Amino acid sequence: MDIKEIARIIGFEYSGKSFEVSGINTLKDASSNEISFVTNPKYFKDVEDSKAGAIIVSSHTASSVPSSSIALIVDEPYLMMAKLSKYFAPPIEDIDAPKAQIGEGTNVSQKAEIASGTVVGKNCTIMAGVYIGSNCVIGDNTILYPNVVVYRDCKIGSDCIIHANTTIGSDGFGFATNKMGEHTKIYQNGNVVIEDDVEIGSATTIDRAVFKTTLIKKGVRIDNLVQIGHNCEIGEYAVLVSQTGLAGSSKLGRNVVMGGQSATSGHLEVAAFNTFAARSGITKSIKESGGTFAGFPLMEHKLWLKLQGKLARLIK
Amino acid sequence: MDIKEIARIIGFEYSGKSFEVSGINTLKDASSNEISFVTNPKYFKDVEDSKAGAIIVSSHTASSVPSSSIALIVDEPYLMMAKLSKYFAPPIEDIDAPKAQIGEGTNVSQKAEIASGTVVGKNCTIMAGVYIGSNCVIGDNTILYPNVVVYRDCKIGSDCIIHANTTIGSDGFGFATNKMGEHTKIYQNGNVVIEDDVEIGSATTIDRAVFKTTLIKKGVRIDNLVQIGHNCEIGEYAVLVSQTGLAGSSKLGRNVVMGGQSATSGHLEVAAFNTFAARSGITKSIKESGGTFAGFPLMEHKLWLKLQGKLARLIK
Amino acid sequence: MDIKEIARIIGFEYSGKSFEVSGINTLKDASSNEISFVTNPKYFKDVEDSKAGAIIVSSHTASSVPSSSIALIVDEPYLMMAKLSKYFAPPIEDIDAPKAQIGEGTNVSQKAEIASGTVVGKNCTIMAGVYIGSNCVIGDNTILYPNVVVYRDCKIGSDCIIHANTTIGSDGFGFATNKMGEHTKIYQNGNVVIEDDVEIGSATTIDRAVFKTTLIKKGVRIDNLVQIGHNCEIGEYAVLVSQTGLAGSSKLGRNVVMGGQSATSGHLEVAAFNTFAARSGITKSIKESGGTFAGFPLMEHKLWLKLQGKLARLIK
Repeated sequence: MDIKEIARIIGFEYSGKSFEVSGINTLKDASSNEISFVTNPKYFKDVEDSKAGAIIVSSHTASSVPSSSIALIVDEPYLMMAKLSKYFAPPIEDIDAPKAQIGEGTNVSQKAEIASGTVVGKNCTIMAGVYIGSNCVIGDNTILYPNVVVYRDCKIGSDCIIHANTTIGSDGFGFATNKMGEHTKIYQNGNVVIEDDVEIGSATTIDRAVFKTTLIKKGVRIDNLVQIGHNCEIGEYAVLVSQTGLAGSSKLGRNVVMGGQSATSGHLEVAAFNTFAARSGITKSIKESGGTFAGFPLMEHKLWLKLQGKLARLIK
Repeated sequence: MDIKEIARIIGFEYSGKSFEVSGINTLKDASSNEISFVTNPKYFKDVEDSKAGAIIVSSHTASSVPSSSIALIVDEPYLMMAKLSKYFAPPIEDIDAPKAQIGEGTNVSQKAEIASGTVVGKNCTIMAGVYIGSNCVIGDNTILYPNVVVYRDCKIGSDCIIHANTTIGSDGFGFATNKMGEHTKIYQNGNVVIEDDVEIGSATTIDRAVFKTTLIKKGVRIDNLVQIGHNCEIGEYAVLVSQTGLAGSSKLGRNVVMGGQSATSGHLEVAAFNTFAARSGITKSIKESGGTFAGFPLMEHKLWLKLQGKLARLIK
Repeated sequence: MDIKEIARIIGFEYSGKSFEVSGINTLKDASSNEISFVTNPKYFKDVEDSKAGAIIVSSHTASSVPSSSIALIVDEPYLMMAKLSKYFAPPIEDIDAPKAQIGEGTNVSQKAEIASGTVVGKNCTIMAGVYIGSNCVIGDNTILYPNVVVYRDCKIGSDCIIHANTTIGSDGFGFATNKMGEHTKIYQNGNVVIEDDVEIGSATTIDRAVFKTTLIKKGVRIDNLVQIGHNCEIGEYAVLVSQTGLAGSSKLGRNVVMGGQSATSGHLEVAAFNTFAARSGITKSIKESGGTFAGFPLMEHKLWLKLQGKLARLIK
């Protein structure tokens, strides 16, 4: 899509030279043929170093845009990015891709559907009602139980087990809201990557990234009815007990254990080998390893027990 | 069904004139060819004004029944209504309805099923494993991702996106319990109506109304694994973050935001533009607009922060 | 599988006589042709009375193994049991079983799949996208709504209703973790049994037992998005409101009511006719009947109200 067309869509007068824009990306990751945007003050500092071909900004951030980038100045940068995201969304199925390839020894139910461009490894079991979208890659020996849905462009490793009615790669919960309170969808053009030896329970949902990848690393164990938001990253051998909810861009280190019905708010990092009791609510990054926490607001488990003791005394 | 047959089923001796009863409804909404019931003291005052052809009551409420209505006096009115509800339940599929109509440009997977009597608009995408029951109406440009299930009689507007493994119109959680603790199902004979431009995540459940309609208004955004009970009404552009649970007959105003894992108890109203932090638990109606709340019991977010500060000091 | 082969797999030198081992079971339930294991000190006392043909133990428990049993002494008994569990797992489908039998008057959608060895009763409705695994038994008049998945070896009674996208019999969340933090799956070789007159909502998950049975008794009512862990036992007419989560081996008595988003930690028993408010968190057994509880930590509902009153005063 030409930069002139983009400028026209977001209502910015642009008379510079034409070039083809291949996509939208974050300030840090955008290359010279991509555009980016800034709206969260937390990321203002990244504007100067961005290699994006153009950056959607409001007038008071425009001066930070480096000379290598075009500043696309608008009133509501986030809303304009949302509007544009639609134009970079791939179709639901890639009808031009070659027929799916199925490895030796793999058993695909006649009631399953595997879309074009997808490659399934050896000795897999793809059961009735499974849908795998276009251009996915599935490793060897992986089992998809009935009615598992995998959206396009996702990758699942070898030796994985995904239980019934689970959804991998549905759209992250993203939209921009205008001053009237009306929402515009931010198309989620990233994917989900699940590494080897991961087991995922039934009716769990793992959203695709808005840009890039939602990542589930090797050996992770995820229970039933767990929600994993877009752009999360789950470290090796982490354990997510049933009904846990991870908001977008949560990063959990290796062997982190989330108890049942626990949760994170988004955009935070948890160091390896931390354990969270059931119903914990994590709202800030945790930089040290090996702790045990509980409660919402979160505190050390020992303190939480002490607090409950104090509260019990209050009502005696 | 004749009123005499109804009286026989619930064990009330009735020797008045015959008339055909078309259904069960609330005291307020029942017309002269419908029956109603009263059991919750909150609704006793509605008995006098009801236009229902007959009302199932206990002996101590019987005197309030207006002369235009027949009082069907029984020991357990709620249980008797439950018993009757079965007789007014339509069959799971309406086999007499005409073949489904599919609009121009709409793509229906061969692995999807659309039951008789249903009308799907133009340029929709109905993917593998989708089931749409009888007599539904789907607008234009709407996408149903794989394995979405829509029960009979529901309506979905135009420009909607419903993600994989989500269920629209399953039965509300309704039953009457006798003195022995045994339950009798209350058939859920209402429907779900979803207006235009609504996006719903994966593995979410929206129950049909017991009578009338569970309503999701224009522009609403619903995340994954959200529960919406029977007879809820969600205002325009409201936002329900993942794992939120709304109990039956919750009414949310325009642009209400429910944080992750938040909840309402049923039969309450929340005014427009109120925001609820993650894990909020709303148990009472909120009449003023524009507040920010947290906690369970619910309080203003500012107070919740203050309370957490006090508690932190308790354990120092 | 021969005991000598088992010893070889877990790395124990065994020179006794050969015998055929038919499976793994708990200390209490194992018979002389089964093996068992002990790792939780809580169960050390059961070692002496076990009738298991062999018991996997660590060196400091070995002396308790009765003379009728072989002590298989290893460093990590739990991990070794996990390793072995794979060898006793049946295949996903039993291809040697006879073709499924469907009772008179039962309607099976052409888009449903019923695996070999399964028997479906009379007048059932099996809708599109339903999958029923091998060797299941379904009673009469039962309705499985679209995309319900029932794994192999499960039993569902008569007059049951299971709503769309619900999963019955998926694997319990079981694994053993070695000193490096790596997990080994414990194959879940039990099943789920659902008795008569049970209604289960949409997108609910009920895990199969690791050994023996996850049991849902007669007349139980389960709402949407509920999680029931492996080896739970739910008493007659119990009520589980939406988004409740029961950890493994929770036993609820008759007519127990779990409010929305409530939960149990595992391995506990709750006596009959106890009621738990929304968000209750049960962490210990409750031996008396008829109470009303709330909160996490759990307390009598009256006390919880008092505590909230005290807290409200803290911030005035």
